[in-house]
Amino acid sequence: MTMECDLLLEGGTILTLDSSWHLYEPGYIAIGNGRIVDIGPMPVPQGLHALEVMDLAGCLVMPGYVNTHTHIAMSPFRGAGEDMPDRLSRFIFPLEKAMVSPELVYDAALFTIAEMVRSGTTCFADMYYFEEEVARAAANAGMRALAGETVVDFPAPDCSAPYEGIERALQLADAWKGHPLVRACIAPHAPYTVDEVHLARIAALAESRDIPIMMHVAEMDFEHARFSAGYGSVLRYLDRMGILSPRLIAAHMLFLDDADIELAGRRGLKVAHCPASNAKSGRPVCPAWRLAGSGVPVGLGTDGPLSGNTMDMQTVTSLYPKLQKTRERRRDIVSAREALWTATYGGARVLGLEDTIGSLEAGKAADIQILAIDDFNCLPAHDWYATAVYALQAHNVRHVLVAGRFVMKDRRLVFADEHSLKERLLVHARASKAIINALNQ
Amino acid sequence: MTMECDLLLEGGTILTLDSSWHLYEPGYIAIGNGRIVDIGPMPVPQGLHALEVMDLAGCLVMPGYVNTHTHIAMSPFRGAGEDMPDRLSRFIFPLEKAMVSPELVYDAALFTIAEMVRSGTTCFADMYYFEEEVARAAANAGMRALAGETVVDFPAPDCSAPYEGIERALQLADAWKGHPLVRACIAPHAPYTVDEVHLARIAALAESRDIPIMMHVAEMDFEHARFSAGYGSVLRYLDRMGILSPRLIAAHMLFLDDADIELAGRRGLKVAHCPASNAKSGRPVCPAWRLAGSGVPVGLGTDGPLSGNTMDMQTVTSLYPKLQKTRERRRDIVSAREALWTATYGGARVLGLEDTIGSLEAGKAADIQILAIDDFNCLPAHDWYATAVYALQAHNVRHVLVAGRFVMKDRRLVFADEHSLKERLLVHARASKAIINALNQ
Repeated sequence: MTMECDLLLEGGTILTLDSSWHLYEPGYIAIGNGRIVDIGPMPVPQGLHALEVMDLAGCLVMPGYVNTHTHIAMSPFRGAGEDMPDRLSRFIFPLEKAMVSPELVYDAALFTIAEMVRSGTTCFADMYYFEEEVARAAANAGMRALAGETVVDFPAPDCSAPYEGIERALQLADAWKGHPLVRACIAPHAPYTVDEVHLARIAALAESRDIPIMMHVAEMDFEHARFSAGYGSVLRYLDRMGILSPRLIAAHMLFLDDADIELAGRRGLKVAHCPASNAKSGRPVCPAWRLAGSGVPVGLGTDGPLSGNTMDMQTVTSLYPKLQKTRERRRDIVSAREALWTATYGGARVLGLEDTIGSLEAGKAADIQILAIDDFNCLPAHDWYATAVYALQAHNVRHVLVAGRFVMKDRRLVFADEHSLKERLLVHARASKAIINALNQ
Repeated sequence: MTMECDLLLEGGTILTLDSSWHLYEPGYIAIGNGRIVDIGPMPVPQGLHALEVMDLAGCLVMPGYVNTHTHIAMSPFRGAGEDMPDRLSRFIFPLEKAMVSPELVYDAALFTIAEMVRSGTTCFADMYYFEEEVARAAANAGMRALAGETVVDFPAPDCSAPYEGIERALQLADAWKGHPLVRACIAPHAPYTVDEVHLARIAALAESRDIPIMMHVAEMDFEHARFSAGYGSVLRYLDRMGILSPRLIAAHMLFLDDADIELAGRRGLKVAHCPASNAKSGRPVCPAWRLAGSGVPVGLGTDGPLSGNTMDMQTVTSLYPKLQKTRERRRDIVSAREALWTATYGGARVLGLEDTIGSLEAGKAADIQILAIDDFNCLPAHDWYATAVYALQAHNVRHVLVAGRFVMKDRRLVFADEHSLKERLLVHARASKAIINALNQ
């Protein structure tokens, strides 16, 4: 055999997360045209030639994390209004109305993409206002993203009238059609901020345009109380609008009974589970293990920087099994291997990208994180999955590739100057100080 | 005023964690003879002179974390036997019997002290076998520690007969009496591994020698079932032996009813709460917020590297409010400020060291962590307590002082060569491979 490729990664321990759980200790990955063209155990096959060879001896190689639920442009507000009851209506909505501009969204999005890349994430699904700026930031960074424009029943930062977000979302989806990394979609905010007529319309439009829908579902206690009263549950209420389908990426999903879990499996919707954000808000733990058992694709998400508060997937991936084991009082569920799979392949499935990303296999895109594992926190490694889930921290990530291109190399960002990213973020954070102080009164 | 001091830290943002929540933004700390001699807002008072001045502009300065429950010598086994039911009896006890030696304990302890120092911890309370080696490692590292020799009703790695640990613990306490950093104590393993006669004897001996007692309490489901049957609860069982006193540092405390919480407050015992370890084992969440409300001093702990799995207090400090809010379904309890206080001053109180450490105040020991807060994960900082609890990660810690001496400076350990620490650990980890594999069958 003779094969030419662009980049050869050799000598690292590779967790493929493929369906046979192949683990090469050590292995190699050959990359060409942004895709994995060959992968296997060392030695590298004779006849495989590469323009660039990278020696990864002593490193751990895994698929990049897929963060299934974010609001990345909220980073200028991180840490503000903590522990406030009714924080969404009393603090976040007014703060956004006052501060959110296209400039803020672009600068903050690029900053947070940097934070995500530095912790090994290669793909994220975002929901916000001026979402075209998030899409632009992702494209400029060379990051894979699903960008969801928010729809709400009140004038939003980017809309002068209620529900204008629908038109903006459709324009966004058209504008990014066919882009190799960025796809856009429509994001009705929640069942309590989008009425049933508009939810039905959004379901139909998403179907005709073939785009995903993102929505916060069954996250809030008042939402649960309101829709349970009339319809039995939030999910049964939503089922009437035809919006529960494989097209729906439902974030949170906390207030569910057994019938809801069964219904979710039957309708084929997908779940973005955000354990850190939910726990910090004093909410119930999502029955993620039960949803997965009912056939529902489950991925993990950080939620926004105001909710999480860090955007690293290590924290969330480690918290996921802990909270499920605690919820179910069983040590033997959600193994470390299953948790890592959920944070990578599981997330890809939730975004409908499982044929492209989520595992390291020939033919898939080269979305890869490479970790130095010689720091104190990751030694020794008796079980690579336990190390990956319970021991790794963001700073262990060394190099990150998206579609075969480095977005971080030797912990240096490729797509932007770190200092200017931080400076731009702090401009927006400082400008928000007065309104944050006023809302904190 | 004229004052000479050894070291002046100036220009950083200082969270004192004192009883008035003083926060100097920026401030200075003057250190002499290992103690804080003056602290306040900038500028530095005229007449205060220092042999060494350190400019901490842009840094965050806080008390070092107090880790109230560890088994630091278990690091060679980290990540082994994950998710195994009955892991303690089926995996951990036989593994320890086969592998634990004085050499392993010393090498592993020094390695883990390095990991703890690198994440901002300045004091820890440990329970293990050959605990004299842990004490020696702490003293050699210049780390503050409470070292508890384990007592069990079976031949332990360091005892040929049951209960020999009692004599070993008393010898250890004598040997370290008066040491400026290290104190030793007695550590009956648990109510199910030490019988009531020996618990009563240990309570009396600890009283007469004036040493603390450390014990795992109400951690296991079988323990809860066994003692509830005869006595109503584990705690009511223990109360008969006179061991519930301010001398007792009770780790875990998961299976408690309202009467237990009230009893704990009445007896004045102290609680080492280990949220990450408990959650990973699928156990109930300790009612830590309720215990604190009942007047029980509560601190945080990582537990051992096999349980946690990382030894950084950032993870545990962030998890503590999340799990309490989830347990109680209330966003408004355990504020970020309260969580940070629990991880520092709270821990000092649990170890009976609140007059010496736990906050930054004139007269207290200079046990200090200094963090660089210009990385993506900690920007911006609208609320220093929220940043400290929810955003900080281990790698943000830059310098650490214990009793006024640097144990880490510019992220380099002062007390040991990092490479040799890791090499020694890996020797023990590799030697354990065969027995780990056998036990995993």
